[in-house]
Amino acid sequence: MSDQVERAERFRALHHAPHPLVLPNAWDVPSARTFEDAGFPAIATSSAGLMVSLGYPDGEEMPRRELVRAVERIASRLSVPLSADVVAGYGRTARAVASTVQAMVRAGAVGINLEDGSHATETLAPVASQIAKLKAVRAVADSLSVPLVINARTDALRYAPGDPAAKLREAIARLGAYRDAGADCVYPMGLADAPTISTVVSALGCPVNVMVRPGLPPVPELERLGIKRISFGPAASYAALGLLRRASEEVRVRGTYSLLTDGAITFDELNRLAVPRPA
Amino acid sequence: MSDQVERAERFRALHHAPHPLVLPNAWDVPSARTFEDAGFPAIATSSAGLMVSLGYPDGEEMPRRELVRAVERIASRLSVPLSADVVAGYGRTARAVASTVQAMVRAGAVGINLEDGSHATETLAPVASQIAKLKAVRAVADSLSVPLVINARTDALRYAPGDPAAKLREAIARLGAYRDAGADCVYPMGLADAPTISTVVSALGCPVNVMVRPGLPPVPELERLGIKRISFGPAASYAALGLLRRASEEVRVRGTYSLLTDGAITFDELNRLAVPRPA
Repeated sequence: MSDQVERAERFRALHHAPHPLVLPNAWDVPSARTFEDAGFPAIATSSAGLMVSLGYPDGEEMPRRELVRAVERIASRLSVPLSADVVAGYGRTARAVASTVQAMVRAGAVGINLEDGSHATETLAPVASQIAKLKAVRAVADSLSVPLVINARTDALRYAPGDPAAKLREAIARLGAYRDAGADCVYPMGLADAPTISTVVSALGCPVNVMVRPGLPPVPELERLGIKRISFGPAASYAALGLLRRASEEVRVRGTYSLLTDGAITFDELNRLAVPRPA
Repeated sequence: MSDQVERAERFRALHHAPHPLVLPNAWDVPSARTFEDAGFPAIATSSAGLMVSLGYPDGEEMPRRELVRAVERIASRLSVPLSADVVAGYGRTARAVASTVQAMVRAGAVGINLEDGSHATETLAPVASQIAKLKAVRAVADSLSVPLVINARTDALRYAPGDPAAKLREAIARLGAYRDAGADCVYPMGLADAPTISTVVSALGCPVNVMVRPGLPPVPELERLGIKRISFGPAASYAALGLLRRASEEVRVRGTYSLLTDGAITFDELNRLAVPRPA
């Protein structure tokens, strides 16, 4: 466990460094190991990428035990901190969510993402219930002596009622409450334009996470805007599957393989991604 | 089972069509579904791609039950035939190999790849033992009433003793014996240049499989050479992970995300790859 404590502390410190933490989201062992080899100091999972890779749509249709096993598989092959996306925590009650997070910490995660939106109903959990869940998550991490990094996501920019200004007010109100409940970092899903980023960062005074998407300002501009964490979300899954689609088209239409062979890694490189990086 | 019989027959017929079967090898559900959506009439698994995705190097270090589960997961989301790579069959005896193939057929596969080389020792199984395994595989498929498509791979071009001419003689001798033992298609790993392809095709008179690699002639030329099956092997895994490596470099060095966002699929498209294609 002491190695896990050290990883958690290292992960936490990355949220308070001069440069923002760029956090790639992986979905399986080799995607995670590729990011590690590329020099990223920590890795996260993408719930959408990971769940779809195992045959489940994003959300909580995938059994919790399978999600825990997948996180354990990835964590066991990494030498850098791993943060696990637990969607809305697999539970209506704070106790159930804490139990999910406990399983994730035991699987090797040193950070979690917990969201307040429901994929199925496109609605937001009541604030009070989300606060209770975040407090329970912090308490269970403390009981395991792991200084877990809690990233609290809100889907208010999408699912809150009203016009964009009302959604933004709701997002900021929720994220402030989540920060006060023990979140280390807050994550307004959908935040991408510079003026709104500035508003959110100023209002909250704690690390704010944005996700890579078309139109997101480049890393140096996000740094100027005060962003502390930039995650890929499912972007790398989208890109990899886009490449497979184009490569398929090339083979079927032209009968050639350049998108499959150019810039590809080798068999030996692939096999090295199955196991931990040599020290 | 009748649907599986129909899939097996359809897969077999694709080896005797005027144009060669181009068979993409997937490693998880969304890679397989992407290939299906691109119009490929059948999909195979890549042992290297699949095993590494779950944290094991290529070979037989991955427990057999995990391999079977992964094949079942992919088969259950596909509407086209799936062929499973079973490496050397997970067994020293013909009976053990037949048991592996039985599990694969029950998991939904309608074809298998069985190889005669050992990843661990870089040696070839004795011909007589490989013949016994192929006969046992055919017998167990018959007992399940599934007209399984057996693709018999030899690693003689790499592991046989002697100079390239001696390796080629050994490969042809082995593949002829495997064909006579019940293989539907034969697969000389490493075969890529046109003159040698011609030699092998003429010598064997049954469907021959080649794998995509740099320098492989394009599909129309392979068709002229008499090739009946062109598989990707792990090429798509190599390409996808190569893209992740380049995208990582772009983010880390330039702070931009174009390789993650350009040509990518969307969230809704990703989620649709988790489930069977609508009829």
